[in-house]
Amino acid sequence: MNLKLVFKVVGRILQIEAVAMLLPLAVALVYREDPVPFLWSIAIVAVAGTLLSATHSRQHFYIREGFAAVGLIWLITGLVGALPFWFSGQFASFVDCVFESCSGFTTTGASILTDIEALPKGILFWRSFTHWLGGMGVLVLATAVIPSMGIRSHYLTQAESPGPVFSKLVPKQSQSSKILYSIYCALTLAEVACLKLAGMPLYDSFIHAFGTAGTGGFSNRNPSVGAYGSFAIEMIIAVFILLFSLNFAVHFLLLTRRFKEALQSDELRFFFLVVAAATAIISINVYPAYSNLLETFRYAFFQVCSIISTTGFSTTDWSYWPNFSHAVLVLLMFCGACAGSTGGGMKCSRVLILFRSLRREVHRIIHPRSVEVIKLDGKVTDEETVRSVLIFVGCYLLIILSAALVISLDNFSFTVSFTSALTCVSNVGPGLEAVGPAGNFAAFSPLSKLVMSLCMIIGRLEIFPVLVLFSRATWRRA
Amino acid sequence: MNLKLVFKVVGRILQIEAVAMLLPLAVALVYREDPVPFLWSIAIVAVAGTLLSATHSRQHFYIREGFAAVGLIWLITGLVGALPFWFSGQFASFVDCVFESCSGFTTTGASILTDIEALPKGILFWRSFTHWLGGMGVLVLATAVIPSMGIRSHYLTQAESPGPVFSKLVPKQSQSSKILYSIYCALTLAEVACLKLAGMPLYDSFIHAFGTAGTGGFSNRNPSVGAYGSFAIEMIIAVFILLFSLNFAVHFLLLTRRFKEALQSDELRFFFLVVAAATAIISINVYPAYSNLLETFRYAFFQVCSIISTTGFSTTDWSYWPNFSHAVLVLLMFCGACAGSTGGGMKCSRVLILFRSLRREVHRIIHPRSVEVIKLDGKVTDEETVRSVLIFVGCYLLIILSAALVISLDNFSFTVSFTSALTCVSNVGPGLEAVGPAGNFAAFSPLSKLVMSLCMIIGRLEIFPVLVLFSRATWRRA
Repeated sequence: MNLKLVFKVVGRILQIEAVAMLLPLAVALVYREDPVPFLWSIAIVAVAGTLLSATHSRQHFYIREGFAAVGLIWLITGLVGALPFWFSGQFASFVDCVFESCSGFTTTGASILTDIEALPKGILFWRSFTHWLGGMGVLVLATAVIPSMGIRSHYLTQAESPGPVFSKLVPKQSQSSKILYSIYCALTLAEVACLKLAGMPLYDSFIHAFGTAGTGGFSNRNPSVGAYGSFAIEMIIAVFILLFSLNFAVHFLLLTRRFKEALQSDELRFFFLVVAAATAIISINVYPAYSNLLETFRYAFFQVCSIISTTGFSTTDWSYWPNFSHAVLVLLMFCGACAGSTGGGMKCSRVLILFRSLRREVHRIIHPRSVEVIKLDGKVTDEETVRSVLIFVGCYLLIILSAALVISLDNFSFTVSFTSALTCVSNVGPGLEAVGPAGNFAAFSPLSKLVMSLCMIIGRLEIFPVLVLFSRATWRRA
Repeated sequence: MNLKLVFKVVGRILQIEAVAMLLPLAVALVYREDPVPFLWSIAIVAVAGTLLSATHSRQHFYIREGFAAVGLIWLITGLVGALPFWFSGQFASFVDCVFESCSGFTTTGASILTDIEALPKGILFWRSFTHWLGGMGVLVLATAVIPSMGIRSHYLTQAESPGPVFSKLVPKQSQSSKILYSIYCALTLAEVACLKLAGMPLYDSFIHAFGTAGTGGFSNRNPSVGAYGSFAIEMIIAVFILLFSLNFAVHFLLLTRRFKEALQSDELRFFFLVVAAATAIISINVYPAYSNLLETFRYAFFQVCSIISTTGFSTTDWSYWPNFSHAVLVLLMFCGACAGSTGGGMKCSRVLILFRSLRREVHRIIHPRSVEVIKLDGKVTDEETVRSVLIFVGCYLLIILSAALVISLDNFSFTVSFTSALTCVSNVGPGLEAVGPAGNFAAFSPLSKLVMSLCMIIGRLEIFPVLVLFSRATWRRA
């Protein structure tokens, strides 16, 4: 392990984080709030970051260092992001702060806050800004960092993307990242503008645009997006949620007018098919509660977009929906968004590959001599990718069940323990019952909160970086 | 598709079923109960069986016919086994009868009965006898039928067995089956004798021995094994449950005094490790409720054996245990017994292979140039087997989630829908909450009951035969 280099990289990231904290500091000053929590945090993070980044080291990363560094960065970012919360004195414990910060950076959106609106605007701004930073972090990781480290691209976001891969579209690495930043920022600003035009206050528009961009889901209002009761605002957010759930390579193709290529993606079509089907099914199921076609569609469509994208905003307390609708939403939590997006979950491409390898298995039994390949976008998926997808699915289940086991020590019902674990690993936010759209995660024990924070990071990094970080073999001297 | 041959085989099985019904008929006569339900059933099944088995056909089975026939046999057996229940007039609907019969033959043990003790002794005997027949059926399928059809042994029970494979131990096919029958019958009779000696009535001893042998779990008493309040009876059943959860090849090795080979099995050690760990963990968790070490161990050990073996007997209403213990039991429901046993679930060997391929994946990232194989019992597991295990796990999850979705139409809580689907696919019997150890499946809609019946068969046949049966490609003319 080239630990020094890992420290150096962590140091750089901390410096960036210190700079990022200037923005909520400015917000706090504008609203004449206490700037001290941010000043302390910035000082600590900047000093720690500068000390660490001063480490001298060989400039070479092996794959295991890459994975371990990625895992470590997310862990430390989660810890450090908790500082402003802690210094604000608004949180019951440091574990709560860590939970909220991890939930932010991993773009989960699960909260331990019972009354969000009681918090200062600067703190809430930081809380939502972590979503935006985390979303950006995942995109950069998947499109710039990982490919540049020469790591087998089977893991991390872009991984099994059946569609176009961002880094292959743009010849130069630096250029690729720049285009990515630009699309991400442009889409965020476009959403802010749309929300402002639709009548949302500017501050709230930023908060909700950050939550949408990272597919996170923190709101500054207790009833989430439902607080505005505006059809226009809900539809704007739903559409932007869908945009941020797409593989960013698709955005690039659309920008460069390669519409045909963009629409050829099997994953894209599968994603929209699932959104349409889930909206239709839930609409039929909840229609009796609204008895109005437009109203039904409005709530069903928003909730489906919010959950499959793993954002977690809500426009209504859907705990009162029939249990069938809950089951549909739970399936969407497993599925998640497209690979190469800011969304979480198993990712549509993996679900597609799982379905297709199942179909192939049945065909192999029926026609034992046939040799069938699994195709995506008309291209053959190599068997290594298929295998890694299958292992990923198995691990996903293992991790959710193990986490649910630990969480159940708090003696909540199986539904609460299971959906808490699921919603954290899939980076969604709400679960069912006590952790539903109107609930929160305050009542859990510190152990459960830490396990859930770890689950969020495991899910966000698509499992393996965290496993590598905690594997004995990584730390053994060669 | 050589449909004629499939019909012929189905006919033979029906004839065997008609003969098997003579036993409960005799029981009904001994207890001076109405024999008519059995007479009608035997007549119908015997005639149908004889007509079908008279089909003339080429004597060749392709793999797809083998799979389709296996799927079809279990479906038809489930339907036909429902006849005595239906003619008894004790069941509310034919769907209920089918559910109970499928639950019997698949050795699940889930029941729609609210008052078991109100039923005639002959009917209850048939209900439990289906467990015994089903358990035998699975063993024969795995050790005799499937190998003789030359089907790739990756599927069905013996499948990924890391340990010794029965059909390879005994050179001659016919001999292998005979030894198997003998072990199965001898163990059953031994259990009957032990239970009788421990003070259980003879009739009840047979019922509970059938339930144990098939790892089914139907009892003739409403509070299940708990009705006897006898420590000895509970321990006898627990020990026999463990014996029937082992790969039958291990029994053969023990019989032939090859102890070292028998104990070398990784799966065996894993199974006992899980039983010990789960018993310890649950004991600690429920100790405050009993405040007596022996009492605590007694309930915890029995319940762990009953659930991991997928039997489903209970000695206490463990719905009152803390939710952490429930979560442990849910994990055991996923895991299941050893391959090559009468137990259900994913099987310990598959769980082991899943763990080991996960570990290998992490090692591959850390040491990208290393070539690591997955070993079981010191032997290399071929990659085809690993792949089929991973696909199996993915499918298992898909099927449970899909079934839970349909069941949730009945608007039970997520816990009920999910654990109902899980307990049926894993052939366990009880789930959580309304379908817990003191509950039953009466309240579900006919649609849910049919879906659950299908789930039991899918689980029992380890998924693929049913998928092949329902695949369009199977029925297409070559």
